[in-house]
Amino acid sequence: MASFNIPDLIRKKRDGQTHTREELEALVLGYTRGEVPDYQISAWLMAVYLKGMAEQETADLTLMMAQSGDLMNLGDLPRTVDKHSTGGVGDKTSLILAPMLSALGLTVAKMSGRGLAHTGGTIDKLESIPGWSSELEEAQFLSQAREIGLALVGQSKDLAPADGKLYALRDVTATVDCLPLIASSIMSKKLASGAHTVVLDVKVGAGAFMRTLEDGRGLARAMVDIGTRAGRQVRAVLTDMDTPLGHMAGNSLEVLEALDTLRGEGPQDLTELCVALAVEALAAQGEDAAQAEKRARTTLTDASALQRFRAFVEAQGGDASYVDEPSKFDVAPGRADITATTTGFVGRIDALSVGRAVLALGGGRERKGEAIDHGVGVELIRKPGESVKAGEAVLRLYHRDGRGLETARQLLQDGLSLSETPPQPEPLILDRVN
Amino acid sequence: MASFNIPDLIRKKRDGQTHTREELEALVLGYTRGEVPDYQISAWLMAVYLKGMAEQETADLTLMMAQSGDLMNLGDLPRTVDKHSTGGVGDKTSLILAPMLSALGLTVAKMSGRGLAHTGGTIDKLESIPGWSSELEEAQFLSQAREIGLALVGQSKDLAPADGKLYALRDVTATVDCLPLIASSIMSKKLASGAHTVVLDVKVGAGAFMRTLEDGRGLARAMVDIGTRAGRQVRAVLTDMDTPLGHMAGNSLEVLEALDTLRGEGPQDLTELCVALAVEALAAQGEDAAQAEKRARTTLTDASALQRFRAFVEAQGGDASYVDEPSKFDVAPGRADITATTTGFVGRIDALSVGRAVLALGGGRERKGEAIDHGVGVELIRKPGESVKAGEAVLRLYHRDGRGLETARQLLQDGLSLSETPPQPEPLILDRVN
Repeated sequence: MASFNIPDLIRKKRDGQTHTREELEALVLGYTRGEVPDYQISAWLMAVYLKGMAEQETADLTLMMAQSGDLMNLGDLPRTVDKHSTGGVGDKTSLILAPMLSALGLTVAKMSGRGLAHTGGTIDKLESIPGWSSELEEAQFLSQAREIGLALVGQSKDLAPADGKLYALRDVTATVDCLPLIASSIMSKKLASGAHTVVLDVKVGAGAFMRTLEDGRGLARAMVDIGTRAGRQVRAVLTDMDTPLGHMAGNSLEVLEALDTLRGEGPQDLTELCVALAVEALAAQGEDAAQAEKRARTTLTDASALQRFRAFVEAQGGDASYVDEPSKFDVAPGRADITATTTGFVGRIDALSVGRAVLALGGGRERKGEAIDHGVGVELIRKPGESVKAGEAVLRLYHRDGRGLETARQLLQDGLSLSETPPQPEPLILDRVN
Repeated sequence: MASFNIPDLIRKKRDGQTHTREELEALVLGYTRGEVPDYQISAWLMAVYLKGMAEQETADLTLMMAQSGDLMNLGDLPRTVDKHSTGGVGDKTSLILAPMLSALGLTVAKMSGRGLAHTGGTIDKLESIPGWSSELEEAQFLSQAREIGLALVGQSKDLAPADGKLYALRDVTATVDCLPLIASSIMSKKLASGAHTVVLDVKVGAGAFMRTLEDGRGLARAMVDIGTRAGRQVRAVLTDMDTPLGHMAGNSLEVLEALDTLRGEGPQDLTELCVALAVEALAAQGEDAAQAEKRARTTLTDASALQRFRAFVEAQGGDASYVDEPSKFDVAPGRADITATTTGFVGRIDALSVGRAVLALGGGRERKGEAIDHGVGVELIRKPGESVKAGEAVLRLYHRDGRGLETARQLLQDGLSLSETPPQPEPLILDRVN
């Protein structure tokens, strides 16, 4: 490999120039190997933040981060598909979409994460089912994916370690919210995970990382571009995250809502999003969109997705009776309602406030590794746009012995607004990028 | 002291905002104390590089760096004055100006540095005189300054240590050539050195750090602004450094030329610059400029400056007989000339090439602490604008046993251009800022 002078490379980015792949390797892989010190990389990251990266540069960076560790080999599994959400509140989409895709003949063999701060994680939610485990040996993971079309493991520590190291440095140097770096961080893990098709759900709004549609579009385009340059089929859907998805936020509560949806009885917004994402996955593989939508909806009415979910829970050690008897779930017994002070319409239920309320109740973690209470959460009894009478409940808190209740209540009250006239309805799906 | 979140402060500068003094202290003094890690400061430095600093911010930074270590107390020494040059080739101005100012009734009690890369240092030059030492106890330094108005010591390691630590980090993160950081680095040491009046010689051109007049003006303005905000009298002169100053580059050779100038027999450009800087120093203290110029010139014709120089050499252990018998200086015996290939005019003698040639001959150092050969150097037999016949010498190399001769010769040949018509004469003094 050619030898580079690191300050020269920092200078190049500082002056707004574009790196070659070899230069990026010298910086990023040199850093991962411990040959380039963190103080040089952090100066370079700030230059990237302020000067940006070209599309090919971003794609090169992503691929080398993906290749910096283990590469999941999905071998000859048929029609592999992965899904990623940029993180929201009450977002139980993966729990529904994954078995839908499996029922549609695709293979979902994916890695998922745990929740942090106000956003939940699929693995935490699934652990509401006693016995279910995200720890699978590679051979079991692959054979399960082949047999039932659905397997889900925790993210390997050796998945894109260059991204992990870079992310930790970005976190302490104010260089996190930089579009090409966000896009390459997400996509490096998706590329390393091996699926041929990737469907991205880019959340936009108060409860999301991307606050505006324009920012969200930029991120979606960058990720689709990276995936395309890496030879994958990637499609993105931009969705509203001003208000939580569905009616439930909190681990057990979200699994219960996911089960309702898999029975065809879920809330409309959640159902529509799952159908839309399934359509994107099928369309990416060449299926006609209208036909795909019809097929996707059927998986929720003929219980085929529900059956896949049951098989999946069982295969990973979970107690499948929970799927059929929702009353078995441990839901925290404490209840407290936030009621409307006037008669009118629900204007806004701030997603970030709901996420923080769940965190305050003990349903999330501030730091990696902290234990969580699966039973607590928040229910949106009414959603924005619905009418409400003074004194009627809008939000319900599920708490355990009052833990964090006052903080959660305050957060929810601050995030709730009522109005005399019905608010302008906003579409859930804001745009598509492919 | 208030507690700050460092990533928040980095974010603030990243977004182009202005720091309070307390915020700068948290960053810079936190770093100096080892409480803030280098990887955060280097990200912040890059943000400063790309987003700049306001005038008050730069002044605050400078003052806190000055106060981070020892502060030289010049006490009740009368009319203290310091001089700083941003670094050039063949710049022996301090050797002449300091005794001139002393003869004019001002007190020069200053710290000087050693040369690095292609620029020389006053202390290296003075060490051409056997016995002369830059190591003085503080008491001796102050009493000598009081008695003969002139004392010169090496720069204390504890002078503005925050600047030293920050500079080392800038050096490896491509954040050196940033105007407010350069200005604050220079001025922090000047402020810590204690003189009330500071005269700055900002070099502009091929052999200088500032390549354009516009950049030079910006730096001069920034430094004058800092000094003024700190309650000092600061004036700057912008001078041309496309070509070396005077005829000599190299340690002993420059002292010889300085002695000629102190006898009133120096080259015109060097003499005029020294007079101009002396006038600025006197004008800063309220003297009439025309009167000041007359007085300054007289110190070179009545030998009063030369006498101060002799007394100064003696006081710091040097063999004063060298001042009166220049033939005693060790000048390397090897000679090699670069001759004109055509008849015409000397167009350009690139200052950077001459500086590098001296370095190649052994007269400078690549790294701190390296020994140097005081006797080698380059003589500009003819200066730009002078006529020359084919075969006549333009440049002369003084080498020791041929060491570095071929490299030096090549550098000089590359830096020399002849022309058929006389080049447009450029003024030496380009502008003044106060």
